Amino acid sequence: MTNNSRVKKIGVLTSGGDAPGMNAAIRSVVRTAIYHDLEVVGIRGGYNGLIEGHFTKMGPRSVSNIINLGGTILKSARSSEFRTKEGRAKAFEHCQAQGIDALVCIGGDGTFTGAQIFSEEHGVKVIGVPGTIDNDIFGTDNTIGYDTALNTAMEAIDKIRDTATSHSRIFFIEVMGRDAGFIALNSGIATGAIDILIPEHNDSMEELFTTFRKAQKRGKNSSIVVVAEGETLASTYELAKKTKVEFPEADIRVTILGHIQRGGAPSCADRVLASRLGFGAVTGLMKGLTNVMAGIRSNQLVYTPIEDAISKNNEINQDLLQISEILAL
Amino acid sequence: MTNNSRVKKIGVLTSGGDAPGMNAAIRSVVRTAIYHDLEVVGIRGGYNGLIEGHFTKMGPRSVSNIINLGGTILKSARSSEFRTKEGRAKAFEHCQAQGIDALVCIGGDGTFTGAQIFSEEHGVKVIGVPGTIDNDIFGTDNTIGYDTALNTAMEAIDKIRDTATSHSRIFFIEVMGRDAGFIALNSGIATGAIDILIPEHNDSMEELFTTFRKAQKRGKNSSIVVVAEGETLASTYELAKKTKVEFPEADIRVTILGHIQRGGAPSCADRVLASRLGFGAVTGLMKGLTNVMAGIRSNQLVYTPIEDAISKNNEINQDLLQISEILAL
Amino acid sequence: MTNNSRVKKIGVLTSGGDAPGMNAAIRSVVRTAIYHDLEVVGIRGGYNGLIEGHFTKMGPRSVSNIINLGGTILKSARSSEFRTKEGRAKAFEHCQAQGIDALVCIGGDGTFTGAQIFSEEHGVKVIGVPGTIDNDIFGTDNTIGYDTALNTAMEAIDKIRDTATSHSRIFFIEVMGRDAGFIALNSGIATGAIDILIPEHNDSMEELFTTFRKAQKRGKNSSIVVVAEGETLASTYELAKKTKVEFPEADIRVTILGHIQRGGAPSCADRVLASRLGFGAVTGLMKGLTNVMAGIRSNQLVYTPIEDAISKNNEINQDLLQISEILAL
Amino acid sequence: MTNNSRVKKIGVLTSGGDAPGMNAAIRSVVRTAIYHDLEVVGIRGGYNGLIEGHFTKMGPRSVSNIINLGGTILKSARSSEFRTKEGRAKAFEHCQAQGIDALVCIGGDGTFTGAQIFSEEHGVKVIGVPGTIDNDIFGTDNTIGYDTALNTAMEAIDKIRDTATSHSRIFFIEVMGRDAGFIALNSGIATGAIDILIPEHNDSMEELFTTFRKAQKRGKNSSIVVVAEGETLASTYELAKKTKVEFPEADIRVTILGHIQRGGAPSCADRVLASRLGFGAVTGLMKGLTNVMAGIRSNQLVYTPIEDAISKNNEINQDLLQISEILAL
Repeated sequence: MTNNSRVKKIGVLTSGGDAPGMNAAIRSVVRTAIYHDLEVVGIRGGYNGLIEGHFTKMGPRSVSNIINLGGTILKSARSSEFRTKEGRAKAFEHCQAQGIDALVCIGGDGTFTGAQIFSEEHGVKVIGVPGTIDNDIFGTDNTIGYDTALNTAMEAIDKIRDTATSHSRIFFIEVMGRDAGFIALNSGIATGAIDILIPEHNDSMEELFTTFRKAQKRGKNSSIVVVAEGETLASTYELAKKTKVEFPEADIRVTILGHIQRGGAPSCADRVLASRLGFGAVTGLMKGLTNVMAGIRSNQLVYTPIEDAISKNNEINQDLLQISEILAL
Repeated sequence: MTNNSRVKKIGVLTSGGDAPGMNAAIRSVVRTAIYHDLEVVGIRGGYNGLIEGHFTKMGPRSVSNIINLGGTILKSARSSEFRTKEGRAKAFEHCQAQGIDALVCIGGDGTFTGAQIFSEEHGVKVIGVPGTIDNDIFGTDNTIGYDTALNTAMEAIDKIRDTATSHSRIFFIEVMGRDAGFIALNSGIATGAIDILIPEHNDSMEELFTTFRKAQKRGKNSSIVVVAEGETLASTYELAKKTKVEFPEADIRVTILGHIQRGGAPSCADRVLASRLGFGAVTGLMKGLTNVMAGIRSNQLVYTPIEDAISKNNEINQDLLQISEILAL
Repeated sequence: MTNNSRVKKIGVLTSGGDAPGMNAAIRSVVRTAIYHDLEVVGIRGGYNGLIEGHFTKMGPRSVSNIINLGGTILKSARSSEFRTKEGRAKAFEHCQAQGIDALVCIGGDGTFTGAQIFSEEHGVKVIGVPGTIDNDIFGTDNTIGYDTALNTAMEAIDKIRDTATSHSRIFFIEVMGRDAGFIALNSGIATGAIDILIPEHNDSMEELFTTFRKAQKRGKNSSIVVVAEGETLASTYELAKKTKVEFPEADIRVTILGHIQRGGAPSCADRVLASRLGFGAVTGLMKGLTNVMAGIRSNQLVYTPIEDAISKNNEINQDLLQISEILAL
Repeated sequence: MTNNSRVKKIGVLTSGGDAPGMNAAIRSVVRTAIYHDLEVVGIRGGYNGLIEGHFTKMGPRSVSNIINLGGTILKSARSSEFRTKEGRAKAFEHCQAQGIDALVCIGGDGTFTGAQIFSEEHGVKVIGVPGTIDNDIFGTDNTIGYDTALNTAMEAIDKIRDTATSHSRIFFIEVMGRDAGFIALNSGIATGAIDILIPEHNDSMEELFTTFRKAQKRGKNSSIVVVAEGETLASTYELAKKTKVEFPEADIRVTILGHIQRGGAPSCADRVLASRLGFGAVTGLMKGLTNVMAGIRSNQLVYTPIEDAISKNNEINQDLLQISEILAL
């Protein structure tokens, strides 16, 4: 994971789904590089931009006034061409022509897989920065964008709670997380959800019905159930339909929070995390690291082989599952 | 619309969909009444509560710390029983037993219709307070909850814009408004939507496609279209589907904002409006008014016959339609 | 107030204290002008920019993605040089050189005074757009930025209320408004302030003490007093000090909200207002209007002579004063 | 730190400065205790309430709808009487009379010191829960309320940045933190502050001036300096005054953010943290722990002797200091 040829010119790109804090990470990569007298080039549109040569020279003022913006000024895209040998060869030609000898790739699993293959094929140094709202990356306690997405989901559920309470309704609320229940579990605890359905836990309709029955007995007349997008028991609409069959009197509604969870001004925690990881990516490259991802664990900057970051799982905290049940009392 | 028997005891209820600021209105009704040495009773669960006698005596402290809360502490519901003569007769018995000689009914069209019939049948004085996020009530510039809903919708669309821009996508975003395009038109202007589809305006797919083509030519590579729930051209999903057929290269997404628009802490404008209308309702009853709705027009407290409030329409501002087209340039 | 020479090239500037929504107004001026085939030039730094010739040609994309930003992309400043005949002469030379035949001046009283003199001296058409958080301009129901400032002040006071309640404290909170009590009165009503001190109303320490005594009797053990910056009875710190002398047991704190009230993403109402006024300014100039200010009264676009806008007062609503007392019960 | 007599009845109190998330912690203590068939009593007004016997029996519904509220429903106060042996003896009498055999004390250093002495003198089990916005407690990565305060400070500074940029001003912004620079350092990094002054770091006016000079050279014409309340170099007003003497042309302003930082709806991270710590406090007491504080380190629940929590320091992250300098480029 180290390669001691000196880095002189860094390319930075964002790829995959956008996440709040990506701009703070770009800013940190650019300014840390310039501080250390390296050149930096912004690559627009993820790996497609690398293939098509959409490059912009970055100076310290190119990243002024972006730390507080959601989205990514470098734009993002999924690239099917980069999955081909030919696509990556084109990308490498551009790197050579530009003199780019290292890449900082901000994104998630897919982004890192692409980076790794590219590095192995063409010897360009790569370092990953975990930017995704899903928090499903091994090697860092939190990914960039996750904390902001939690707050966005929570604030939306808080608002829906007002209506649920006023009308004595049951709401099934779907939050993002195709493979991971982090957003659902944490936003569910934070909003006092009566039940939280996530892919990491085996759920059954019968258990859910029991939860509703207990709540009725305790005099709770409105309830929120938070469901992760990737829940395997049933789709959120089916969950609501089956519940209606079992409790025909209940007034049941569904809300899919959707894309609001990806945007917005990043939280303070996300801006600081992104600033640390962008800094860590550049200083890691300067130390000769490659094929690793920069992360923060236990408040320390650490580097994890990209292979591990991709193949291993970020585990859901078991005590949180227990707490979510106890507190829904 | 006047009835000079002196009011001594007022009942207050919220009915229909909840709206941010209803609590501020309840607080204002209660405190204004007490200030004028009237008794006030809270009726829980809208007209159902009137039928079933769910009454609570209200004092000045019953409404402490609620001005900033969404939803309604008196809860709301739609009541099919109140649509029957028998239902209303039961409700009147409870009013008599309690000595309630006037009702303040906070809600929308349906709420006011019920109030009017009840008043005509049983001689109880009624006054309406317009509380609905849709702003579709004649007789007031704004309804309680509308301004907050606008801000909520706008903030959600602002967030989605981050992703739309980062990924060069087209987003169709559906906002509330079953019969009225106020939320769509204003939140669409405020977020720079490329097109806004509302029931008050005849739209065609061809015009929409022309708008997209113009935008492409001008180099706009992401777009937001805001659609009112009540748009008659097609459902939001169908609009997206048809657009995809016309522009197969485009990356098109749909978000239905849903119930988040009903909740949340009321805006300053909504709290002040609710405070003024609650005050106006009680002082109106004291002056002998009945079967009217309190409203604010041109910053002045005015009373409109409930009949007009129900039958007439709050018109969409024509210059806003024009502005929305010019500014989407 | 009309001058029928056709306008061809418009200059737009922001001057005086910045207000959220100024960018939305700039965007609207630029796009409305371009839509009508007029040229538009942005003048940076208010009247200083006019004197020094800091001009930028504006196209439709110059104002992309700014509708949601606080502050002003054209920057603002107070200009002492523009108060001199020589300064204005220099400014006029630049206008002539550039072919600018009309100015849209976004700001407050001071901005309008400058515009009027300039127009009279040099025959350049001018139209004012009221942009100030203070709402102290005659000729428009609301100024741009006022609604946002109200929400910012209210949200800050809501937060302080948490501490006031938890610790049974009295807080004196100073909000902006050097000459006008609009922010204080409305944010005070919206947060349930026990008293609201504004320059438009004669207050006395004795009345304030009476209010506290009544509150104590009613069992209120925490209180918020909202004070306008321009209150004449005493400074906010002195008010607190005198209250402490009268109630030595009370735990009294002062918070000056300060500059947070000027910034932040504009509210939906402010963005729509700014869009309408920017549109109205350009179409007004096209109709030959000059030396007027565009405003919205009773939801209609209206033009007021700048002279009146400057010399007349926007009156505080008397019923709001009464409501503020009743509801603090 | 263990005492194996079985706990049957727990008292819970909040003491010291309030912090967002204290209510979430109370809710978690109450529901976890009830889940485990323990009785719980709420003590109102901190240690004063213990001395005066202000007790309320808590059930699961006593803590409904509070997870999202700032402040503390149990109220808080500093108690000079509890610092006396007599005061604590009175408190113990009430505990005995009530059958309270364990206390959960939510607060900061002062709260824990009181708990420890009380426990040593009277044998009542105590466990601390770190609730303070300052994050200055050893034994937990974050204290309850810190993350919310960071976001509040950051959002306020973001707003002030709008004005700073529009007017080319320098703003000195004071944030809370009497002994610790955590809020200043993190909110300063998150808002791109040009300099951050904290008590943990030796600063000099000369260094600050150098920073301003460099910024001027780089063409930065507006700057934010974030100052911790406990900065030792000079008061925030003095810093501004001295800077004005050195840079007489500069337009310099001061804002003291003040009490807004203590309030507001807790962030998702704070609600989850508070839920975990409340759970940890009760389960810790059940395992026989006493005189410890529950904390989360590296995402795991840990217990630290109260003695260490009080006497040791939570260290500022050194790499953050370095990053703050590099990124202000």
